[in-house]
Amino acid sequence: MTLNELETPALVLDASIMEANVARLRARLGGLGVALRPHVKTAKCDEVAKRCLEGQPGGITVSTLAEAEYFAARGVRDILYAVGLAPNKVRHVQDLRRRGVDLTVVLDNLEQARFVSDLPCLIEVDCDGHRAGVKPDDPGLAELGRAVKNLRGVMTHAGSSYNCRSTEAIAEVAERERRAVVVASETLKREKASASVVSVGSTPTAHFARHLEGVTEVRAGVYVFFDLVMAGISVCRVEDIALSVLATVIGHQRDKGWAITDAGWMAMSRDRGTAAQPLDQGYGLACDADGRPLDGVIVADANQEHGILAHRSGEAGRMPHLPVGTLVRILPNHACATGAQHAAYHVVRGSRRVEERWERIRGW
Amino acid sequence: MTLNELETPALVLDASIMEANVARLRARLGGLGVALRPHVKTAKCDEVAKRCLEGQPGGITVSTLAEAEYFAARGVRDILYAVGLAPNKVRHVQDLRRRGVDLTVVLDNLEQARFVSDLPCLIEVDCDGHRAGVKPDDPGLAELGRAVKNLRGVMTHAGSSYNCRSTEAIAEVAERERRAVVVASETLKREKASASVVSVGSTPTAHFARHLEGVTEVRAGVYVFFDLVMAGISVCRVEDIALSVLATVIGHQRDKGWAITDAGWMAMSRDRGTAAQPLDQGYGLACDADGRPLDGVIVADANQEHGILAHRSGEAGRMPHLPVGTLVRILPNHACATGAQHAAYHVVRGSRRVEERWERIRGW
Repeated sequence: MTLNELETPALVLDASIMEANVARLRARLGGLGVALRPHVKTAKCDEVAKRCLEGQPGGITVSTLAEAEYFAARGVRDILYAVGLAPNKVRHVQDLRRRGVDLTVVLDNLEQARFVSDLPCLIEVDCDGHRAGVKPDDPGLAELGRAVKNLRGVMTHAGSSYNCRSTEAIAEVAERERRAVVVASETLKREKASASVVSVGSTPTAHFARHLEGVTEVRAGVYVFFDLVMAGISVCRVEDIALSVLATVIGHQRDKGWAITDAGWMAMSRDRGTAAQPLDQGYGLACDADGRPLDGVIVADANQEHGILAHRSGEAGRMPHLPVGTLVRILPNHACATGAQHAAYHVVRGSRRVEERWERIRGW
Repeated sequence: MTLNELETPALVLDASIMEANVARLRARLGGLGVALRPHVKTAKCDEVAKRCLEGQPGGITVSTLAEAEYFAARGVRDILYAVGLAPNKVRHVQDLRRRGVDLTVVLDNLEQARFVSDLPCLIEVDCDGHRAGVKPDDPGLAELGRAVKNLRGVMTHAGSSYNCRSTEAIAEVAERERRAVVVASETLKREKASASVVSVGSTPTAHFARHLEGVTEVRAGVYVFFDLVMAGISVCRVEDIALSVLATVIGHQRDKGWAITDAGWMAMSRDRGTAAQPLDQGYGLACDADGRPLDGVIVADANQEHGILAHRSGEAGRMPHLPVGTLVRILPNHACATGAQHAAYHVVRGSRRVEERWERIRGW
């Protein structure tokens, strides 16, 4: 089967590009002497995770217990659930552990320390003020460390790295991320000798950290596919984006320079992550069916099942000729968000031939 | 089971509110003497569609062939697929028709007229310049009508009604929507006597059209649940919103006035439809577990599986006390987008008791 025979919209994964992305981070972290604990929240797919785990210790990071269940059923035993635990999930975590899964949970406050009981825990550290976590110099950190019965270490996520404008700036954020967990880890090791894990993670910082001294593992997710947000901050090139949505031109408003497709926000997601970047890519950047970008054509607007292709300048005269029935592939702003709208990947390798169909999971 | 026993995040549907919304539009369209063809793209659920179809002729509107398959398997025979047809879907449509489903397709150009062959068609009319369709006074309309072998009539969607600021303005848009299809229908009836369907549709215009003379059916979808976008343009009140996402507080950044929950954009969707309205509701408006709004608390920001609750003023001192473990229910900006992130509804009726679980479908 080829892409020309699929009903659109459909999610397309170029496995050659993905494998190059996986090899790039593997080589880089190997050079820094740190293990990778891939974050499977981006791909939510065993076939992708297997490739990420080659040459690694075998542990993964998940964002939901549904992911933990799915990967546990496929033999993964070392799982970090990297969202602060809610009391209504304790029983489920205990159940997974009874079934032989070494599931570690995350927390950042004393209330959680009480209800997690003896589950193995990492304390979340706030390295950049963007979300959860205890600040590394917070006087409450040592007390929290004492309160956690089964403390394995610390973790942080430099979410602010997504807002950087240069790889230099990312390297600075990476150093703050590293320093935050290393400082917190030193405090906690004085309380609990068991607190040996020092975990950092974000795709930008994983690629541009100058060194990772004192860090025991790196978590990264979107590196496997990359996306326009990552290209917009120079973490990758547009041609490194492995994921796209296949769509068909179904009509035009020629006076406006619009070509209308059957891939709306349901297929692309509502993510507008490039809106705040210097180059706003709308709901995605259009390529031809072979994956070559159409010069300056973006999804300028989207309804549920309609996408509006237009030249980014807004000039009708600059739109290429895209007759009804033309297939396009649209690169996503955010691979995690676009992937989540689909049930499966249609896997190609540099051509239109669909070699495999890989299922994804969803839910919580 | 009650909401307190669910793992979060979870989609909650208050069926009492939904039934009142359904009754409201039924009464209104009954008064105007026009049938409803509910758009099932919002709920994607048989249990909801059944309630919408009470007292109606039985036809539905779908946005995907996956919805057509699902409802055909549940006995619905009259289905309008309301997205301009792509050539790669012709065979699937023909197959559904061979199985006894009276599936009508939509088009707006001569290229489509060629490949749809003898499938029954509506011509899409552009009433407000927001998306697809032929303008009602376009000299090409009659030619298109002649080219369509099996022409059943016309349809339009007043998408611009979502940007209105008053119910008066919505009534004006509704009149333009009505006039556009009636004018187009008169042109086409001169070409083809079979072109009897005159179909309009959007939730705002369905509720505020002054009259619908010449219209044979109304399509509406989001009216069944409503959402913050609809409340923001006065189509409904906040208390008419039937859909919410149950979430748990998992931590705080007290200096910033943040409570962090386990419902991020994966649970809410990335839809920021209220961002352009006078009252920006962030990623959603927080209520307590019984559905009563927490004064001014919104999801100010969201990561994949983390939501940040904050007072809309940004003032830390105005946040209510929400200890770790507190359950909140978050009203969505856009019911279609939030619903699509979930596999099922947890159905309540004005209390925390979960009476039923209704599955949703997804995909294309």
